Amino acid sequence: MDWQGYLDREQPRFVAELLDFVRIPSVSAKPENIGDVRRAADWVAARLTAAGAEHAEVLPTAGHPVVCADWLHAGADRPTILIYGHFDVQPAEPFDLWSSPPFEPQVRDGRVWGRGASDDKGGMLIPILAVEAMLRTAGRLPVNVRFFFEGQEEIGSPDLPPFVSANTDRLKADMIFSADGLQWAPDQPQIVEGLKGLVSLEIRVQGPRSDQHSGLHGGGIANPAMALAQVLAGLKAADGRITVAGFYDDVLPLSEADRAAIARVPYDEAAYLAETGAPAAVGEPGYSTRERLWARPTLEVNGLTSGWQGAGTKTVLPAEARAKITCRLVAAQTPERVFDAIRAHVLAHLPPGVTAEVVQNPGRADPFLLPAGHNATAAAAEVLAQVYGRAPYRTRLGGSIPVMTTLLEHLGVHAVMFGFSHDDENLHAPDEFFRLDAFRLGQTAYGRLLERLGA
Amino acid sequence: MDWQGYLDREQPRFVAELLDFVRIPSVSAKPENIGDVRRAADWVAARLTAAGAEHAEVLPTAGHPVVCADWLHAGADRPTILIYGHFDVQPAEPFDLWSSPPFEPQVRDGRVWGRGASDDKGGMLIPILAVEAMLRTAGRLPVNVRFFFEGQEEIGSPDLPPFVSANTDRLKADMIFSADGLQWAPDQPQIVEGLKGLVSLEIRVQGPRSDQHSGLHGGGIANPAMALAQVLAGLKAADGRITVAGFYDDVLPLSEADRAAIARVPYDEAAYLAETGAPAAVGEPGYSTRERLWARPTLEVNGLTSGWQGAGTKTVLPAEARAKITCRLVAAQTPERVFDAIRAHVLAHLPPGVTAEVVQNPGRADPFLLPAGHNATAAAAEVLAQVYGRAPYRTRLGGSIPVMTTLLEHLGVHAVMFGFSHDDENLHAPDEFFRLDAFRLGQTAYGRLLERLGA
Repeated sequence: MDWQGYLDREQPRFVAELLDFVRIPSVSAKPENIGDVRRAADWVAARLTAAGAEHAEVLPTAGHPVVCADWLHAGADRPTILIYGHFDVQPAEPFDLWSSPPFEPQVRDGRVWGRGASDDKGGMLIPILAVEAMLRTAGRLPVNVRFFFEGQEEIGSPDLPPFVSANTDRLKADMIFSADGLQWAPDQPQIVEGLKGLVSLEIRVQGPRSDQHSGLHGGGIANPAMALAQVLAGLKAADGRITVAGFYDDVLPLSEADRAAIARVPYDEAAYLAETGAPAAVGEPGYSTRERLWARPTLEVNGLTSGWQGAGTKTVLPAEARAKITCRLVAAQTPERVFDAIRAHVLAHLPPGVTAEVVQNPGRADPFLLPAGHNATAAAAEVLAQVYGRAPYRTRLGGSIPVMTTLLEHLGVHAVMFGFSHDDENLHAPDEFFRLDAFRLGQTAYGRLLERLGA
Repeated sequence: MDWQGYLDREQPRFVAELLDFVRIPSVSAKPENIGDVRRAADWVAARLTAAGAEHAEVLPTAGHPVVCADWLHAGADRPTILIYGHFDVQPAEPFDLWSSPPFEPQVRDGRVWGRGASDDKGGMLIPILAVEAMLRTAGRLPVNVRFFFEGQEEIGSPDLPPFVSANTDRLKADMIFSADGLQWAPDQPQIVEGLKGLVSLEIRVQGPRSDQHSGLHGGGIANPAMALAQVLAGLKAADGRITVAGFYDDVLPLSEADRAAIARVPYDEAAYLAETGAPAAVGEPGYSTRERLWARPTLEVNGLTSGWQGAGTKTVLPAEARAKITCRLVAAQTPERVFDAIRAHVLAHLPPGVTAEVVQNPGRADPFLLPAGHNATAAAAEVLAQVYGRAPYRTRLGGSIPVMTTLLEHLGVHAVMFGFSHDDENLHAPDEFFRLDAFRLGQTAYGRLLERLGA
């Protein structure tokens, strides 16, 4: 039996294993789930060993642990590749919007439903299964393989840079492939050429010492919730352009060639709106929706908190109001310069009668762009064309994956995203799911990729 | 022994009873405390009976119950007075800001600390104790007395109007006194001539169908949290004036005499800021801080909710953002016209790419102003001058007490606030307290008031 036959035969077991994996609520953002992230790491290490990988180890960082393993017996003349993924997941709140509980995964309609099924537990399991199939059938792999899985991608991988920096021998490779990535559609592959960077921050506006009676003190002193609204509204013009002084200073303008490449990829605004449920596509003027999504920096409010949020009325003038914000960055912006610009803007435009602080939250990423003529990219594109029967689109992604720039910085290699999720799978939202067809197809694609790289 | 001696002798028991009363977490805003509000009603009815009042009954409304009792044996030639108060309390959140638990009251520094000690459990107990003292010593009261205590003042007394309307015989009186009220200072009484009205509403801004990945969709579709901030910021000009079209249309301008009366009451802005802990007093231009607090309508954000509010970063573009707002109204504004104006303004100024709804929350009050030459007011002022040794200031209050206008509308009587709390007692905030000196003084004042009215 060849490795493809093995994959076919073992698929029911693999799906059951994915369900086991999703059952672990490895939410990296929540302190109460620290132990669950560790349990997920142990699960991954055991699964790697079961697949035939060697030296599978859970290794500590200053935060959540990582898992490393390898199989390095292909010979010195064969390339060494590093495969990356993550076993942590986003918080699942609000729970009441899920059709089935986020950590009690179900298979329905050819999909696995549950938090992390798509991002990235299903994705990172794929290359492990492809390697198992090859080792169990051929007894060997065509290339040397290292595995590197982390548990803090969803909080921006804050502790990964020192780990990678201190473990370059363990991680060194000729090429890197990330199992955390999207295909364009179930029948259309893509190569993602660019990712946005990320900076995360919080604005806290303070007024009175403690919550005050809104009748006794309303009109006398400033209201921090209103002041926060004024500060946030002041970050953007009515037309959607970000008004923070210096925000766009480091942005490389889109060339005509860039804009043409983006325009070549089909775009259906009605379908986009149907997918998100948003009533209209709006944003920075002068750019198409897709250009904004792929190639322009953004500033998004992720959360608001102030005062009374329970049922009914509480006549309170809140002591404090807070907003969480993340900005997505494009080349050649840096998180630090953008943070400094926003902080200075907020403090310079603070309404009277309140004080404020602007603090940077954990999680940062530089923007990432694949270089032209990149070997690993060419190989990945060839395999995708073969497996899907269609040449991949060349796209960009509005999301941020800090590890891509961390790996580039410390290992000197541009990672290629080679993942099989899709952006309609409710990543980061209730009712996340993963397509079982893509789960199976991805295993074939990884097997072919290893064969192609070892040829 | 006269009634004053009785009050002196029984004071330790009265304090212990107040502690028992505060221990009941009768939070009217929270559905889980419905049973506690009912327990508080039962406690009040039993206490009224113990004081010698007759016909003490817990009576249903569409929401929390009321308690009625009376003592009507003073004779037909004597006036009948109605005494009002409330046994429900504000929510106690955030619990961690309390020095001692809100529903485990303590006596420290001559004060009772706990939620509701000042607003209004201490206050409403005072007239009951004065009546007990007179009945236990003289065996009779100088006037006919009705008691009327409610359990939904802190949510705006939504179910009181139909109750009062259907029970005018049970409640009819020549004068009404409210035991829910403030004195100017422990050594300075006041007559509160005016109260603001209230309208409560919520703005809900909707964007995508569910929370979206802020990287995949940021910049493509509108962010409801940002849109809400823009909507809120658009409700006020930078200088603090409310910009809602029509908001000020029904406001009676302050006369020079009104402004002079307000200016006669001492005001120390530094002390005001020290009391609230706010960094500055700011608000509508063209009016003094006190004029804004007492005699100008306000619009305050009571709470903000959107997206991720936990620790760390969640890169989400929220599906929804909500703001709770209350406006305080002055004569001759009406809650309905102000709500309509805000709703129309919000819908007319909604940023592109979102939808919104504006809903009125329970709790409304018309503004209230005592008429010139009001008998009950004159009697109350005379008693306060006697008991404190100082003539009361004539003031207004930024707070809203819907029952005042409900009583006026259905019983035809302007109620006079005759209460002994103070506005530094953390009403509606953590560490609420009530002064035991004022508790005792209030009992004497109520006794004298009954004597004065029966003379």
